[in-house]
Amino acid sequence: MALRVFCPRVMSPSALLLLLPLLLLAGVPLAAAATRPALWPLPVSVQQTPNLLYLSPVSFEITHGLDSSAGPDCFLLQDAFRRYHQYVFGYSENPDVSRMSSSVGTEIQKLLVVITSDSECNAYPNITSDESYKLVVQASVAVLEARKVWGALRGLETFSQLVYRDSYGAYVINETEVTDFPRFPFRGILIDTSRHYLPLKTILMTLDAMAFNKFNVLHWHIVDDNSFPYQSMAFPELSGKGAFSHAHVYTHTDIRHVLDYARLRGIRVIPEFDSPGHTNAWGKGQENLLTACYAGSQKTGFFGPVNPILNTTYDFLSTFFKEVSQVFPDNYIHLGGDEVDFSCWKSNPDVTKFMEEQGFGQSYEKLESYYIQKLVDIVSSTNKGNLVWQEVFDNKVKLNPQTTIVEVWKGSYYEKELSDVTAAGFATVLLSPWYLDYISYGQDWRRYYYVEPLQFSGTSTQKELVLGGTAALWGEYVDATNLMPRLWPRASAVGERLWSSKHVRDENDAYNRLTEHRCRMVRRGIPAEPLYVGYCEL
Amino acid sequence: MALRVFCPRVMSPSALLLLLPLLLLAGVPLAAAATRPALWPLPVSVQQTPNLLYLSPVSFEITHGLDSSAGPDCFLLQDAFRRYHQYVFGYSENPDVSRMSSSVGTEIQKLLVVITSDSECNAYPNITSDESYKLVVQASVAVLEARKVWGALRGLETFSQLVYRDSYGAYVINETEVTDFPRFPFRGILIDTSRHYLPLKTILMTLDAMAFNKFNVLHWHIVDDNSFPYQSMAFPELSGKGAFSHAHVYTHTDIRHVLDYARLRGIRVIPEFDSPGHTNAWGKGQENLLTACYAGSQKTGFFGPVNPILNTTYDFLSTFFKEVSQVFPDNYIHLGGDEVDFSCWKSNPDVTKFMEEQGFGQSYEKLESYYIQKLVDIVSSTNKGNLVWQEVFDNKVKLNPQTTIVEVWKGSYYEKELSDVTAAGFATVLLSPWYLDYISYGQDWRRYYYVEPLQFSGTSTQKELVLGGTAALWGEYVDATNLMPRLWPRASAVGERLWSSKHVRDENDAYNRLTEHRCRMVRRGIPAEPLYVGYCEL
Repeated sequence: MALRVFCPRVMSPSALLLLLPLLLLAGVPLAAAATRPALWPLPVSVQQTPNLLYLSPVSFEITHGLDSSAGPDCFLLQDAFRRYHQYVFGYSENPDVSRMSSSVGTEIQKLLVVITSDSECNAYPNITSDESYKLVVQASVAVLEARKVWGALRGLETFSQLVYRDSYGAYVINETEVTDFPRFPFRGILIDTSRHYLPLKTILMTLDAMAFNKFNVLHWHIVDDNSFPYQSMAFPELSGKGAFSHAHVYTHTDIRHVLDYARLRGIRVIPEFDSPGHTNAWGKGQENLLTACYAGSQKTGFFGPVNPILNTTYDFLSTFFKEVSQVFPDNYIHLGGDEVDFSCWKSNPDVTKFMEEQGFGQSYEKLESYYIQKLVDIVSSTNKGNLVWQEVFDNKVKLNPQTTIVEVWKGSYYEKELSDVTAAGFATVLLSPWYLDYISYGQDWRRYYYVEPLQFSGTSTQKELVLGGTAALWGEYVDATNLMPRLWPRASAVGERLWSSKHVRDENDAYNRLTEHRCRMVRRGIPAEPLYVGYCEL
Repeated sequence: MALRVFCPRVMSPSALLLLLPLLLLAGVPLAAAATRPALWPLPVSVQQTPNLLYLSPVSFEITHGLDSSAGPDCFLLQDAFRRYHQYVFGYSENPDVSRMSSSVGTEIQKLLVVITSDSECNAYPNITSDESYKLVVQASVAVLEARKVWGALRGLETFSQLVYRDSYGAYVINETEVTDFPRFPFRGILIDTSRHYLPLKTILMTLDAMAFNKFNVLHWHIVDDNSFPYQSMAFPELSGKGAFSHAHVYTHTDIRHVLDYARLRGIRVIPEFDSPGHTNAWGKGQENLLTACYAGSQKTGFFGPVNPILNTTYDFLSTFFKEVSQVFPDNYIHLGGDEVDFSCWKSNPDVTKFMEEQGFGQSYEKLESYYIQKLVDIVSSTNKGNLVWQEVFDNKVKLNPQTTIVEVWKGSYYEKELSDVTAAGFATVLLSPWYLDYISYGQDWRRYYYVEPLQFSGTSTQKELVLGGTAALWGEYVDATNLMPRLWPRASAVGERLWSSKHVRDENDAYNRLTEHRCRMVRRGIPAEPLYVGYCEL
């Protein structure tokens, strides 16, 4: 039988019915041998016939269906149509019109995009955004149906991945039906702009590559000990003194640019302002924010975590996070909370006195808890949810499962941590196995691909609390010179793990598809490194 | 004392005499605090005073000294003068002339380059090329003296590294005297264009970066099992069928471009045509060249190493290497000879018969030796020396120490191998500790830097046979998307080890200089990755 079907799920009887007309078409003679398209991440269901349809770069158009709730006033879709037309047909080439028109096959003239519900065209995506879509590619008009623009964006990417060129160079696509939706709603990439400043261009290119891999969260670890590039309106000295230089700053215009660019690709931007640790750079522009460290009765001149005992600290945090909550539209802010070093707090006599007054004993976890609870209250008052690193949970800070998501990052025993966090009723996001800054020789993407995020002991209710995961590229050894090839296509392995069905685990098949997918990224301008020996078609 | 001297060697009395006038100048008031320049690799002797001299981007010129044996008809130097003027002052900036002219300090108006012997301006560099130079930077004219153009090129690089910008943005240089020459005459970078094709642009950029690090040999592993991109005139089918595609070929025009570009930077290009193993791609365009493998009495359809028993093999090799010897001007060709798998030879009944006739017994090393000796004879008849991988020596192939250099690449016990190879009277080049394709997390440049190539047991005569080393970036996981940041600045560590005095081993000092040096490379357009957290001045 000439029909090839690859469908990772057991096919339902209704799906088989859908296939029938395609089966009937399978006898039509072929212009060229069909190649299995390198879809990445693999959709939930793909059904194809060997029948080829031809696309003319001159006349093919992507446009709104008549019955769509979105129209030409939906800039998000208009921009996506333009973008994907370019991805499908390339940028610079002069299409050979004479050759195109002489193609003997059936032509496909349009892709109609139909939004069937309130489009959310002008909204920002969030954790509940519907990314499902259905794509039917047939002559002479293909239809992409989605309830929201978010699904349309994902479907456009899939459509663009289905098109290839036959041996004569003509653009072709097989008759295809795709039904698709993500396995996890939170599929993140973490970038770190504190260890090294990343120019805007690098961030935008990362967002492009994320869209090619159906990621939907940019976790922007924007500040840390090393530099504070976020330009605050309320506290301009934070970047004025805490950034590497005046040139290494994200202005509000820069940030708006990132936010818009991300939204148009269905990507949330969650900023992380990590505290009370990892705040060395904050102290440069904000006096009395950090705890002064002591050696005996003398100040050392060094500073530790944020000083949790002063009212001025919380006044500052209120103003600062109010601003942040307005600048970043996402309804979550990442508050950090990892790796708080207690030694400086322990050394400070005022902190010691405060601990006594509060009856915290020797439990600096209680002091941390005191701080975090006040911080969470501040952020909650801005109507934002929050994410925190696992230590906040581990140290038994009292948190509200309705508003806090716990991120699991420690390397060892992360299954146990997922189990504990979800047993306590918290939603969680997994990072531990996906620290892409740890490089090694060879095909480490296989290790990332192998991970099964739900393989931990817990009830189905617990499993449902796993929102997804994030591939983290911490910045100690990464800047604009090497970020793109280090992140891609290694992060693509995480992308498929978080989007595709849990049964999609065939490494050889993944290797073949990912090899082609990385070449597609290269053709689209992303310097994604090779998986192994070989070359890309130009 | 305000005078800072850093001189890795014990200073000779005559050097101290040279210092005297500088010491006398040390009382002159300073326009700005002098920063120790980040020289990389560190010259043999650098003597500086805190006195600053100003350079005007508008009027400063690099030109020939009156008593130089080279003049404006020496294109190599003319091109270098142009290049280094750009490196010193940047490309795109409009110098602020008003500010420049208001500088209160002493101006340096020219750098005069004086070649004191036959310039070798139109020659290709070789293993005996003199790269020594002496640089005296003083008002109002600096002088760079070298016996040959090769030393002038190295001195221009050093001069360019000495210039920096003061806090007002003015270009300044300290009064300086540099005496310099390389510790080893062979300082190589290996690139591999078979596992992945590298576009010309990537190769040329690599040559630029090599010049910035005073490397002088491009070891071009041009063909291998995976593809044959070298376009042979005599055997066009070798690339016609053996290259990845028609677009993945180095034409003779391409190669000329590389050779010229390298020569202008004082860099030799040594092509490697590895045989008899690693030749799978050769077989696609040249019938009967490879050994047919057998399973019992049946051919498997697979092929092994070059077939060493046929006269046609040597006819082919004669014609082929005659061409190669004409295309590549260097007086050495790398013949490979590594990792010959004997199993296919063992399976082939014709080979077995030949072994019996020759009385080789079961020693396939003897068969390999038979092949290599004939190959070496062929190449020697073109008046070229040859390099081979260590197995050729290990397998006791009879070689002539006058014409063969043995390259040590195996990872374990390389000190023992260096000892054995040099005890047998062979010149050698070390690669083992510098396989830069093996990546790992963190600052692995320190490991490369730590290596001491002469730390093996042997006489001083043996040590003198160590010509140098090569940093190898094999191509399994490397192509144009990631080559530059993976190679630089990690290879820079090898560059200093091979150029600078053996006493230059201070890792902290190296870290500081290399951090600045990598930023300098970035400013010159090389995407060299960061050593650690931080940023580059723009």
